[in-house]
Amino acid sequence: MARIVQKYGGTSVGDVERIKKVAERIKATRDDGNQVVVVVSARSGVTNELIARAKAVCETPSEREMDMLLAVGEQETIALTAMALHGLGVDAVSYTGAQAGILTDTKHTRARIQTIDPKRIEDSLNAGKVVIVAGFQGINADGQVTTLGRGGSDLTAIALAAPLKADKCEIYTDVDGVYTADPRIVKTARKIEEISYDEMLELASSGSKVMQSRSVEFAKKFGVVFEVRSSFNHNPGTIVKEEISSMEQVVVRGVAVDKDQAKVLVSNIPDKPGSAAKVFKALADASIIVDMIVQNVGRNGVANLTFTVPRGDAKKARKTLEPVLAELGGGQVAFQENVAKLSVVGVGMKTHSGVAALLFQTLADAGINIDMISTSEIKISVVLDQDRSDEAARLTHTAFRLD
Amino acid sequence: MARIVQKYGGTSVGDVERIKKVAERIKATRDDGNQVVVVVSARSGVTNELIARAKAVCETPSEREMDMLLAVGEQETIALTAMALHGLGVDAVSYTGAQAGILTDTKHTRARIQTIDPKRIEDSLNAGKVVIVAGFQGINADGQVTTLGRGGSDLTAIALAAPLKADKCEIYTDVDGVYTADPRIVKTARKIEEISYDEMLELASSGSKVMQSRSVEFAKKFGVVFEVRSSFNHNPGTIVKEEISSMEQVVVRGVAVDKDQAKVLVSNIPDKPGSAAKVFKALADASIIVDMIVQNVGRNGVANLTFTVPRGDAKKARKTLEPVLAELGGGQVAFQENVAKLSVVGVGMKTHSGVAALLFQTLADAGINIDMISTSEIKISVVLDQDRSDEAARLTHTAFRLD
Repeated sequence: MARIVQKYGGTSVGDVERIKKVAERIKATRDDGNQVVVVVSARSGVTNELIARAKAVCETPSEREMDMLLAVGEQETIALTAMALHGLGVDAVSYTGAQAGILTDTKHTRARIQTIDPKRIEDSLNAGKVVIVAGFQGINADGQVTTLGRGGSDLTAIALAAPLKADKCEIYTDVDGVYTADPRIVKTARKIEEISYDEMLELASSGSKVMQSRSVEFAKKFGVVFEVRSSFNHNPGTIVKEEISSMEQVVVRGVAVDKDQAKVLVSNIPDKPGSAAKVFKALADASIIVDMIVQNVGRNGVANLTFTVPRGDAKKARKTLEPVLAELGGGQVAFQENVAKLSVVGVGMKTHSGVAALLFQTLADAGINIDMISTSEIKISVVLDQDRSDEAARLTHTAFRLD
Repeated sequence: MARIVQKYGGTSVGDVERIKKVAERIKATRDDGNQVVVVVSARSGVTNELIARAKAVCETPSEREMDMLLAVGEQETIALTAMALHGLGVDAVSYTGAQAGILTDTKHTRARIQTIDPKRIEDSLNAGKVVIVAGFQGINADGQVTTLGRGGSDLTAIALAAPLKADKCEIYTDVDGVYTADPRIVKTARKIEEISYDEMLELASSGSKVMQSRSVEFAKKFGVVFEVRSSFNHNPGTIVKEEISSMEQVVVRGVAVDKDQAKVLVSNIPDKPGSAAKVFKALADASIIVDMIVQNVGRNGVANLTFTVPRGDAKKARKTLEPVLAELGGGQVAFQENVAKLSVVGVGMKTHSGVAALLFQTLADAGINIDMISTSEIKISVVLDQDRSDEAARLTHTAFRLD
C-alpha cells in the first residue's frame, strides 16, 4: 500500500462536472490500494471574484481580512470534493488548513509554513478515509486564518508529503508536465521526463509558468519527489527530483522566454561608492524585484546602471528612482519595454563547456542582438528584442538538440 | 458607553452596496460611543447556490461536509463587512464561529450551542475594535465546523448577547418589526412596540415568519431583551422581552395565519389502548411535526384521529402511516390540503375571559366554518378553509380591536 498526495489546481476543479471527474480519478487511485491525501485549490475564477468584491467595499483591504475572505474558496472545494467522493461510495473527509495542522507565521497573504502536525490526517488515513485538504491556507499561533500567497496549493501538497512520508506527490494542473520550451512558441518542444530541483527552479525564475519557485525550493529542502501532470488526461508527467549523475548528460534541459520584463537604464549617476546601493535599496524598499544587472563606469566620473524589472513595476520604478537620483546629484532614468529574457537551463552545463559560445553564435548567425547577459552555474540568460524572442527560442531549441 | 449586539440578515448584506450601507449603520452606532458586536448571515442566495452545487456532486450530501460547505457563506460576509468598516476608517476585526468561541454539540446541520467563550471578542472590544462574527456556525469539541440550522444567525446574536452582557441586542431584518397581523393580508395591521417572549413564541409557531422559535426560547431562557427592526430604514422596531403586567391590558397581541398546513384524517382504527401512540410514534420517528390533534371515539369499537402536519410532509405522512394501520388491523388515511390555521395570541388571555367566544362568534357571523380548535394559556388556534382564511384574519383583527 503506497501513500499518495495529489494536488488539483483551480481549473481541474473549476465546476461541479470537473469536481466529479477529479473524484473519479481519486477513487481510481484509492481502488489501486493506495492511501490518498488530496489538496485542492479554489474553483478557477472564485478567488478573483472575491478580490473584486473586496476592492468594491474597500480600496485597500487589510491583509488579515483578505486571508479570511480568500480562505473560503478552498473551503468550498474541499467540501464539494468530499461529497463527490461520497457520491462514488468512497469514504472521505475534508479538512481546512487549520484542521490539517498547517501552522504558519503571522505574515498575512504570504505566510510561511512553520510546522505541520499531520495527526488528524494520519488518523483519518488509518481509518480508511480519503483526506481532502484545503490548499493555500493555514492558521497562525494566534488562531488567525492565513494564506500562503501565489502557488500556495502546490506548497501545501509538497509540504504535507514530507511529514506524511508520502511515496508519491502528484501535482495535477492544466498542462502535461514541464516542456523543453513553451509548446505554443516552439512547435518541436518535448515533455521532459525527469528534471532536477535546480533546473526546475531556474526555469521557474526564467518565466516558465508551471510552478512557483517556493514550492520547488521546499521540495528540494525536504527531498520531496513530485510529478507535474495533467488532470485532463492520463499521460505521464514530469518527475522533479534531486539531481542524479545521468542528468548531466543533457547539457541544456530547457529554454524559457520571459516577456514580462522591462529594461531600466539609469545613466550618468555620480560614480561614487554607495550610488548603486542606494538605487537598489530604494527599489527593494518598494518591493520591486530586480533581475539582471549590468554596471558600466562611464567617462567624466559618471556611471551607468542597466537592469530588468517585471514590466508591471516599470512605472513604480520610475517614481521610486526620481527622488534617489535627485539625492545622488544627477542622472537620468530611461525605460525600454520591448525586451524579453531568454534562458537556457541545464545541470549539464556544470561539466560541459561551450554552452555560452553556442548560444551567442546561434543568435549572432540569425542577426539577433544580445543586450545583456547573466549566468549562473546551470543557466545562461540573455536580454534581447522582444519581437525576435520567439524566433530566438526556436533557434536555440534546435541548436541544443532539444527538438 | 453601552455594548450593543447587532445582527444583519442575508438580504441586509445581499451585495457589496448593501454591505457598505450596513457598515455605515455600524459606524453610526460606534460613533455614538458604543461598543459594537455584529453578527452577519451569508449574502442572500449564497446558501442556496452552495446547496445546489452540493446536490449536483452528490445526491445526499453528508451533514458534516454540508456544514463545512455552508460555513463559507458567512465567512465571506464577515471579511467583507470588516473591510467595508476599514474603508470608513473604523477599526474592525472578523471572527468565524470557531474563533468567536461558539462551542456546539456534534449534531451537524442542526447543532446546539453548548458554551460560548467570549474572551477573544472581549479583548477586541477592549482594544477599541468593532467585532464582526459569522452567524449560523460554531465548532464542536473535536474541532469540526458545525452549523446551527435555520435562523442560526439570530441565535448566534442572542446567544452572544448573554455572556457579553450586552445592553442591547438588535436583530436587523427586511421587515420593520412584529405586526399585529401580516400587513399583506390585513391592511390595518400595526407594528407592535413591545411583545413578551411567550407571545413571540406563539406567533412564531403560528406561522409568523419573523423569527425561529429557538432563538426566542434562548432569549427567554437567558433574559436577553432584543429588538426586531429593519436595516433599510431607521424606524423603531419591536422590543421582545419578559412579560410585564401592563402587557396584560391588551387581550390579543396579534393574529397569525399559517397556510402551510395539511389536515390528516385517520379513521376507523381499532379503539384499543396504544393505537394513537403507535400512530404518533411512527410520525415522530419520521421527523414529521404534528400540530393540532383531535381524537374521537366512533361507534363499533373504532376511533378517528385528526391532526395537522406541515403541508410538505403530507406525502411522507401517508407513506409512514400505511404500514402502521396494517399493523393495527384496520383504518384509512385521508388528507385535506386546502386548510389554514388561524391563531390569536396574547398574554392578556390569562386574565380576560371570553376570547374564545368572541373569536368563534366573529367567524360564525361571517359563515366561516371551524374545523378544529386548540388552545394554550395565551393562544387560541382554529383550523378553517384556506380560501376564507385571509378574510377570517381581517375580521378577527377588527373584532379584537387591533386595527
